[in-house]
Amino acid sequence: MTETTPGWLAPDEIESMRGRMPILYVDAVPVRVDDTGTVTRVGLLLRIGADGTVSRALVSGRVYYHERIRDALLRHLEKDLGPVALPSVPVSPTPFTVAEYFPTPGVTPFHDPRQHAVSLAYIVPVRGDCRPRQDALDLEWFTPEEAAAPIVQQEMTGGQGVLLKQALAYVGRLT
Amino acid sequence: MTETTPGWLAPDEIESMRGRMPILYVDAVPVRVDDTGTVTRVGLLLRIGADGTVSRALVSGRVYYHERIRDALLRHLEKDLGPVALPSVPVSPTPFTVAEYFPTPGVTPFHDPRQHAVSLAYIVPVRGDCRPRQDALDLEWFTPEEAAAPIVQQEMTGGQGVLLKQALAYVGRLT
Amino acid sequence: MTETTPGWLAPDEIESMRGRMPILYVDAVPVRVDDTGTVTRVGLLLRIGADGTVSRALVSGRVYYHERIRDALLRHLEKDLGPVALPSVPVSPTPFTVAEYFPTPGVTPFHDPRQHAVSLAYIVPVRGDCRPRQDALDLEWFTPEEAAAPIVQQEMTGGQGVLLKQALAYVGRLT
Amino acid sequence: MTETTPGWLAPDEIESMRGRMPILYVDAVPVRVDDTGTVTRVGLLLRIGADGTVSRALVSGRVYYHERIRDALLRHLEKDLGPVALPSVPVSPTPFTVAEYFPTPGVTPFHDPRQHAVSLAYIVPVRGDCRPRQDALDLEWFTPEEAAAPIVQQEMTGGQGVLLKQALAYVGRLT
Repeated sequence: MTETTPGWLAPDEIESMRGRMPILYVDAVPVRVDDTGTVTRVGLLLRIGADGTVSRALVSGRVYYHERIRDALLRHLEKDLGPVALPSVPVSPTPFTVAEYFPTPGVTPFHDPRQHAVSLAYIVPVRGDCRPRQDALDLEWFTPEEAAAPIVQQEMTGGQGVLLKQALAYVGRLT
Repeated sequence: MTETTPGWLAPDEIESMRGRMPILYVDAVPVRVDDTGTVTRVGLLLRIGADGTVSRALVSGRVYYHERIRDALLRHLEKDLGPVALPSVPVSPTPFTVAEYFPTPGVTPFHDPRQHAVSLAYIVPVRGDCRPRQDALDLEWFTPEEAAAPIVQQEMTGGQGVLLKQALAYVGRLT
Repeated sequence: MTETTPGWLAPDEIESMRGRMPILYVDAVPVRVDDTGTVTRVGLLLRIGADGTVSRALVSGRVYYHERIRDALLRHLEKDLGPVALPSVPVSPTPFTVAEYFPTPGVTPFHDPRQHAVSLAYIVPVRGDCRPRQDALDLEWFTPEEAAAPIVQQEMTGGQGVLLKQALAYVGRLT
Repeated sequence: MTETTPGWLAPDEIESMRGRMPILYVDAVPVRVDDTGTVTRVGLLLRIGADGTVSRALVSGRVYYHERIRDALLRHLEKDLGPVALPSVPVSPTPFTVAEYFPTPGVTPFHDPRQHAVSLAYIVPVRGDCRPRQDALDLEWFTPEEAAAPIVQQEMTGGQGVLLKQALAYVGRLT
């Protein structure tokens, strides 16, 4: 997006706000479902840090000024999963949970050293092809059992592993 | 279905239970959504009673023995909307509300003179063609505004008009 | 209760229905909360089986004919926690999840060899003194961390350990 | 509160942010409930504008930097209802809905000419005495029927009447 897009902030502007008020985010858990709506797979983005560390992440990002939550969800889903993922954004604005990422660890299970972010979290079934873009190397699909297992959980940061387990619990697939 | 289907009960069997314990139901509100998940239309079945009275109804019916709620939803959606409606059954078993239909009017907003039915209510986006079958004459699509208006509300019986307004409230389309 | 209470069924009557249709239940997770509504403790009933096995259980039971869900919740809470537990029954009829207990293991995470029970599950803060009655020996309070730990989870049967973890996820206390 | 409170912003600081990013709010609907958790009354604040116009409002306000949502709820409840209202903040962080107040009317049912505010909305039972403070003249209790009636609805601004109806729908008291 360009500098003239409504809601866009220059890096120094967003920096100056990050220490002053909670920043509104959305988190999306991409899932594959069968014909009965049962979640069969959960999609996680694979990221490689500057130091070579591997991490798995949910689709996540900021809500812009004058942007509806459902438009922010679509924008981040398209950014991370590509243009033909065919996501089904939920019909209700009610999130399955709210994740409060604090700059101070331990206040909640969620932590973001950069800022106080409050994220509305949604489950999003995707029917199309996912082609990760931007800084994500890959999107990998896990069974609910794999997604809740320690090996995947420990590759998630900032409490997103907890958020993923909350999503699995909400869809009845945490065991 | 035939008499040998598990969960099927002969008419006299179901009658004998109706006065003895709550009967588990599902209610589904079929909706059309746009690309952002916003509900644009609500589908209501048109029924003509034996006495010629017109009524509008949600997709609704009993859950069978040994049947999962999501399978009961699919079965009733296919029965009422036909085989190519392409419904998206919700990923979570949590209903948007629970409607308690009492045989005695006034205990709750919901009333069913035949029985005490407890119905788990879901919003179900449908993407395909709807071809009503069975005793429904037609399926008609209404805007959220039309669906909440008195002219439609008074054609709904047993409190389903209230349930429809609860559905609209849940998706942020009750004004 | 006596045989003349509405909704009461003789043992042979309920038996004859158990194999024929889903039976409506409620599950309640009793919790202690602090001033900010944060769940600090979860209450589990201690039961000793005929064979001496120890098990932990949620407050749970059937909904009677012509009984509202919230009245069934209160009745079971009073039966299991005593008359001065001061439970706060939720304002909304929407459960945090629905547990489908099947007589066949593996259909869902929930299993009840006696019947197909569909249970609406609620979190219920209790402010008063809990004095277990009936067949419960004791009510013990656990921290969220303890309640999700294997040692407690393996003392729960029929999938109630999973239901408990779903409850903890819903209140933001599953880590 | 004083200027040194964390999260506090000087008037010109908050002004400069209001046109740049969505501001996180909470809305609380104070209710009275009976022993079974049924909502019997809804509390609305009475405000008199500079021009003498009367309006009714929910408890509402901003979430501060480094403040948990449940602490923001308590702070605004105490500010508007006084110190002995004894509110029961919900156990779950999941709101019953999310109200997106846009500076441009018509994008959503919610409108705030000053800013783009995204508000997490909760139902809060209060058991104690309510003594409105600050700029509220009074707190008045309405039955669910009265609260949804046009005479009350038209005294609410910015779409809060819609939010109130969504709350009533969620607790099963919108008819």
